Amino acid sequence: YHRLSIMSTRYSRGYSNNENKCLKKWNANGKMREKSLTMDTLNPQVKAVEYAVRGPIVTKAGDIERGLQQVTTTYLPIILTIHINTSCLYVQVVALCSFPELLDSSSFPEDAKQRARRILQGCGGQSLGSYSASQGVDCIRQDIAVYIEQRDKGVPADWDNIYLTTGASDGIVSILKMLVSGQGRSRSGVMIPIPQYPLYSAAISEMEAVQINYYLDEDNCWALDINELHRAYQAAKEHCHPRVICIINPGNPTGQVQSKKCIEEVLHFAYEENLFVMSDEVYQDNVYSPDCQFHSFKKVLYEMGPEYFNTVELASFHSTSKGYSGECGFRGGYMEVLNLDLEVKAQLVKLLSVRLCPPVSGQAAMDVIVNPPLPHEPSYLQFHKEKRAVLGALAEKAQMTEQILNTVPGIKCNPVQGAMYAFPRIFIPPRAVEEAMSLGISPDMMYCLRLLEETGICLVPGSGFGQREGTYHFRMTILPTTEKLKVLLEKLRDFHIKFLKEYASLEEPKR
Amino acid sequence: YHRLSIMSTRYSRGYSNNENKCLKKWNANGKMREKSLTMDTLNPQVKAVEYAVRGPIVTKAGDIERGLQQVTTTYLPIILTIHINTSCLYVQVVALCSFPELLDSSSFPEDAKQRARRILQGCGGQSLGSYSASQGVDCIRQDIAVYIEQRDKGVPADWDNIYLTTGASDGIVSILKMLVSGQGRSRSGVMIPIPQYPLYSAAISEMEAVQINYYLDEDNCWALDINELHRAYQAAKEHCHPRVICIINPGNPTGQVQSKKCIEEVLHFAYEENLFVMSDEVYQDNVYSPDCQFHSFKKVLYEMGPEYFNTVELASFHSTSKGYSGECGFRGGYMEVLNLDLEVKAQLVKLLSVRLCPPVSGQAAMDVIVNPPLPHEPSYLQFHKEKRAVLGALAEKAQMTEQILNTVPGIKCNPVQGAMYAFPRIFIPPRAVEEAMSLGISPDMMYCLRLLEETGICLVPGSGFGQREGTYHFRMTILPTTEKLKVLLEKLRDFHIKFLKEYASLEEPKR
Repeated sequence: YHRLSIMSTRYSRGYSNNENKCLKKWNANGKMREKSLTMDTLNPQVKAVEYAVRGPIVTKAGDIERGLQQVTTTYLPIILTIHINTSCLYVQVVALCSFPELLDSSSFPEDAKQRARRILQGCGGQSLGSYSASQGVDCIRQDIAVYIEQRDKGVPADWDNIYLTTGASDGIVSILKMLVSGQGRSRSGVMIPIPQYPLYSAAISEMEAVQINYYLDEDNCWALDINELHRAYQAAKEHCHPRVICIINPGNPTGQVQSKKCIEEVLHFAYEENLFVMSDEVYQDNVYSPDCQFHSFKKVLYEMGPEYFNTVELASFHSTSKGYSGECGFRGGYMEVLNLDLEVKAQLVKLLSVRLCPPVSGQAAMDVIVNPPLPHEPSYLQFHKEKRAVLGALAEKAQMTEQILNTVPGIKCNPVQGAMYAFPRIFIPPRAVEEAMSLGISPDMMYCLRLLEETGICLVPGSGFGQREGTYHFRMTILPTTEKLKVLLEKLRDFHIKFLKEYASLEEPKR
Repeated sequence: YHRLSIMSTRYSRGYSNNENKCLKKWNANGKMREKSLTMDTLNPQVKAVEYAVRGPIVTKAGDIERGLQQVTTTYLPIILTIHINTSCLYVQVVALCSFPELLDSSSFPEDAKQRARRILQGCGGQSLGSYSASQGVDCIRQDIAVYIEQRDKGVPADWDNIYLTTGASDGIVSILKMLVSGQGRSRSGVMIPIPQYPLYSAAISEMEAVQINYYLDEDNCWALDINELHRAYQAAKEHCHPRVICIINPGNPTGQVQSKKCIEEVLHFAYEENLFVMSDEVYQDNVYSPDCQFHSFKKVLYEMGPEYFNTVELASFHSTSKGYSGECGFRGGYMEVLNLDLEVKAQLVKLLSVRLCPPVSGQAAMDVIVNPPLPHEPSYLQFHKEKRAVLGALAEKAQMTEQILNTVPGIKCNPVQGAMYAFPRIFIPPRAVEEAMSLGISPDMMYCLRLLEETGICLVPGSGFGQREGTYHFRMTILPTTEKLKVLLEKLRDFHIKFLKEYASLEEPKR
């Protein structure tokens, strides 16, 4: 098994490298000069962090792309990064804000200039180059509040509850950080969906909180089942203090869109059990299934009446990185936090102020996202044409991905109702499972490594997101162009069939 | 004392607001619905964080500026934020990278376009809008390595050791996070200068590490005294495990520039005691005293010989936010980490990857900072004229600030050798000290609050940075224009004299 030994060597690169462990030198006084920071003395919480989205597979893919690693067969660099060919308006406004002399140029539409002028007026020194307030630029926070009110059909939004963040991740980590306390059985527990976006599990590890898994129902299009929430909560109560429930809607990596009824159930549950609610709604503009609609947790909470709306603590998160813009490099985002205790709010502002402010260009990009052009503005037609094109293509690719994957024997894919990913279940033959175990890696990791080496396609193994034991998945974005995605799905199908055949032809594993 | 009661009320606003503490509601089942997150259930580490640079004084100044708070006397909004009227080239390159269609415009110099093209080629999808690698864009890391080699007169720099960060703060927090471990007497101790930039103390509180203070020598221009390092280390060893030494050079808030000899002593000490060295060099371009010169810790380490250069673990930090550019809103920065254990390095990359990537526009700005125009390039003359003007004005203001402050009875200011701040010692009369104590605030906080209310000048009290007990200071930036700064210093002088007179005329405090 030459191939396997290669794989095993490669996988271990940088992960179990011991060559410098014994680097000790004698210093002037005859004492040993050891490294002060080794795997033995590293913060154990840092060691515990796992983050598959940028894990070994993606590192390896990057190495391959940069020619640092050779692949054994035909090489096709399809590394699925998030990038959308985005509307002009975002980048026009950011360019204008960055270099305001361009405001005199006739090559920009007037509405881009108006937006840029408004943002600059809110910035210190009228420049993106100054720090902003820690909560973000006031006028951008006001625009966000207006956006939320419109999105939620008039549910009131107070810009004092809006905080600009460095992508959504920054906000999520900040809120979690506030909620972690206690020791032993009173240590804070954080309920997260499984499968989940691994930022949650990474932050929980780093903060030494207790991760409480509630499993999404794969047989029911990854829906959230309220009985499973109760089960997970009751079981966790035995050994920790459940304080927060996190929901990702639309789901990452699972792509489901939650029904209004289900959101009501979650909010009622949070109300009854005194949980803080964190709703990750970064894919709110990415809903493709005609049967589905995005409902914000806030709007549903409002409709449940003041008894709920005035009490349940809810933080919801949005970002510039998804939607139909995909401006992830600017690291823009915001959170809206409802019903926060006033003293705690001052603590939150203090905590956020330690990082001074979120990148101001990301704040500017966020402003355009919540403030798209109106019918009378010059950018309107172009912007909405681009938006329709991006969302239309994503909807088409969501459907195509599901369909093609479901033609492959041993792959079963739920509908991609929203977000940007398919998360199909894959059958891995017992012989392959055993082989992976003997290499000390998870079977879906081995699957994805082989896929990368043999086809250049970079997918993230399901084990990085969490999955029911004995099931295997991968996450795949639907972001390449339709043509490219089709080629890619076909290559994937061929690989999968070959993989199944290869392991079926091997003798049965000994038990 | 009407004034004081106002001050006291204002100070308490948002800091001891108890009005919503009793917000309890009965839920449907007759249970109480309490807030899940209150001061009692907040993460105690978050509560412990202090961050004066954006503390109550700055919050209050912002409220005044936005008309949310009235001031009793003439109002003059001099809130000293960091903003430098910066060179075109930075913002031109960021604008070009943001909106690459501008590359066809004739209104940009060719060298700005070349830089933008090079950066874009290194970016995913040739766009600032995509995530970059977690360590940053490769070609920018390469440019940084070249810059460091030139700065350090040929000391080799490997771009594999360079990590782009979200401002310098992000890098500092990430490195500290790796180094914190152990419990009780083996808990990690972090040596920091006093006075210090409060990011350090805030991060230490948040991570529950042990803060080890070494005091800078105010009587000797805030120099670092190696005997004081030994004293602090030996004392700390009794109750924790000192693992890191942090140095800020040039100093924030103290403005001193470290001599080469002193850096050698620190590095020798770190070598002997097996400490990880963190050198915060964000003000490396801000040296004004003709007698002083910036020496990087790395260069000095190199000159101490391979025994040191190949063993001492050193992380040094730089940023787009200072220097002669002051592009703080872009949140650009980098760190170079030497002699890191290879396995630990993989852990660092993993940790950084959880936040996906630093803002790509900040990375682009960093690239221009390390890659200024060369003599044959069209932007050269303009750029260097601007650079000289900015640094010349800062040097002039550094001197003027020291001189004017030293004419005021009861204020004593060390030379502002570098960085962007004066940190003068102020005499606060015993009666004023007692009054502050009775209000439950530090005397320099009371001083700065009154200064803000009576003159609109916003300074940060020394207690936010740390100071020897019984001494009082404030931090003041030298960033306003020369004319404005002069007016400001005169107003400050008048205030100080009035303040002294007022408290001298009061009866002596009863003891």
